[in-house]
Amino acid sequence: MATIKDIATRLGISVSTVSKGLNGASDISEELRQVVLDTAVEMGYSTKRSRKEENRKLCLFIENMNYEKIDEFGYDIVLGFKQNAFRHKWDVTVVPVTPAFQMEEKYDTYLLKNGYCGAFLCGFALHDEWMKQLQHTTMPTVLLDNFIANNPNVCYIGTDSYEGIAMAVNHLYTLGHKNIAFLNGSLHSMVSEQRQEAFETSMASLGLEIQQDLMAYGYYVADSAQYHVPGFLSAGATAIICGNDLIASGVISECTQRGFRVPEDISVIGFDDIPLAPAMTPPLTTIRQDRNELGKGAYVVLNSLIHHISISKMLLRPQLIERESTTRVSKEPRIIKDDLK
Amino acid sequence: MATIKDIATRLGISVSTVSKGLNGASDISEELRQVVLDTAVEMGYSTKRSRKEENRKLCLFIENMNYEKIDEFGYDIVLGFKQNAFRHKWDVTVVPVTPAFQMEEKYDTYLLKNGYCGAFLCGFALHDEWMKQLQHTTMPTVLLDNFIANNPNVCYIGTDSYEGIAMAVNHLYTLGHKNIAFLNGSLHSMVSEQRQEAFETSMASLGLEIQQDLMAYGYYVADSAQYHVPGFLSAGATAIICGNDLIASGVISECTQRGFRVPEDISVIGFDDIPLAPAMTPPLTTIRQDRNELGKGAYVVLNSLIHHISISKMLLRPQLIERESTTRVSKEPRIIKDDLK
Repeated sequence: MATIKDIATRLGISVSTVSKGLNGASDISEELRQVVLDTAVEMGYSTKRSRKEENRKLCLFIENMNYEKIDEFGYDIVLGFKQNAFRHKWDVTVVPVTPAFQMEEKYDTYLLKNGYCGAFLCGFALHDEWMKQLQHTTMPTVLLDNFIANNPNVCYIGTDSYEGIAMAVNHLYTLGHKNIAFLNGSLHSMVSEQRQEAFETSMASLGLEIQQDLMAYGYYVADSAQYHVPGFLSAGATAIICGNDLIASGVISECTQRGFRVPEDISVIGFDDIPLAPAMTPPLTTIRQDRNELGKGAYVVLNSLIHHISISKMLLRPQLIERESTTRVSKEPRIIKDDLK
Repeated sequence: MATIKDIATRLGISVSTVSKGLNGASDISEELRQVVLDTAVEMGYSTKRSRKEENRKLCLFIENMNYEKIDEFGYDIVLGFKQNAFRHKWDVTVVPVTPAFQMEEKYDTYLLKNGYCGAFLCGFALHDEWMKQLQHTTMPTVLLDNFIANNPNVCYIGTDSYEGIAMAVNHLYTLGHKNIAFLNGSLHSMVSEQRQEAFETSMASLGLEIQQDLMAYGYYVADSAQYHVPGFLSAGATAIICGNDLIASGVISECTQRGFRVPEDISVIGFDDIPLAPAMTPPLTTIRQDRNELGKGAYVVLNSLIHHISISKMLLRPQLIERESTTRVSKEPRIIKDDLK
């Protein structure tokens, strides 16, 4: 690994200037400091410095996810991560991130500059600048719901989508449903792809027919429902599995507006178990991701990466939460209304 | 959760007798003690008792795997598990297990009786009696290379087979190989199935043809080679990926005996990086499973399960170890010997 002397030699500056740059002294320019930091990162110096035992600081970067209020999706994730980290005497800083911020600051350099030993990233999208940089990062990094191939410094953490969707399909099957629709989240998402595969595999393993007009990708928002629910209803769906609870809330509204009762005419099942789920009308049956456990687990993995255990993936168990939006399939033939045809 | 009183009521015996049974007092019969323990397990008492903080004992059960000498496969797994557990002040007992032992002792009862808070199981086979019992165990359990669906108390740990096989295929591809054969391990093994899928996916993603006569399941032993290598050679393989290093050693012998030089005529790549691999002739290129990390990671997961973080799967990164059994594909057409046809 590179030493301060190596960095000085490469840049043709003195060892003391490099040292000032690395330690954030006030008497060198911000531009020169940035060059020193970037070179240090490039030469693999970061790992060496940031793993010092006395420097127990972790960073939680968060994007596209609300987390400040108790009823927001990210709240328990942040809480679980902090709880476990504090218990083991680490400091945690939560840093909200934008795409612009990622263009301004290099990932490794940012961590080095601020003395972080590792980071947990929540809510990042595939096209984010930092996602590209993670392919080569030397910093211990845990990534929620995304996988980076071939880099032993990065671990993917999430809830087991296969088992979650299988639970949803099995639950509906035991209630007598056969025409099960699946309104997935966004097309370009690793998690959506896993859930799609899980849906098709689970249906097939129960001998249920996979019908193209009962499957669609939408987005992870309630509005998705209006574009796909009418088609599902016309095609004879008796139950709809949704990519998340927000989609499910839209599906319930859409069904209700069209005169279909949930669950008597159509069963609806979500994914996530957000704090809002039990308060929906009817209270939502869903597949729970335990967000507090996700946060705690992320700390466990990050600490392992820092101690050179190269974990690639860690998945948590989902849990079926039965509430009132699913019931036995109705025996009476449904009347398809004209406006749905 | 059940109390001592509940157990006493169910069995129609006194609370003090139940207590004696649970604590292994000498003045009750072994038969009665067994009934008390079995009932306690059935009623979910085990979890409550064994998670007491003062009772820091873990068990490592091991079957079908040598581990006592430094050059044996299990040695570093056991070592890593113990290292991490001892560091966190847990005692570890290593218990070798046979199929007969599993018929005699119920899994949960054995743990309860001996005061273990959780266990790590290495080398178990799908048809083992305890594998059935793990579907319903209430004890925190980490299982090497096997997955139990829907039980939040059991976690699967292993090396990422997909990434490992993809590394092997990519390595051979960059050396110019197109006719790549795959001699897999046993058919009825989760890991073999993952590797088979990974092989076919990796070949397809590089635009390489998947040829049925270049793929076979064998067993995880060197002898597998003699049944499949002749066919691979006749079918024009220029490289063979093996399900483990033992198979690879057999493949090298088989090729050599038939006048094919490794790697000049045919490249061979293993899986595991057992201690023997660098000492083979030629030294074996292989996909490393870091067994010390597997052991350490198993402790991390087991400790998480004990603290109610329901991890389902944890995979470690494999690593390509380039030695001398692989090289660029030969440009000269090979002479197929008569005895191979």
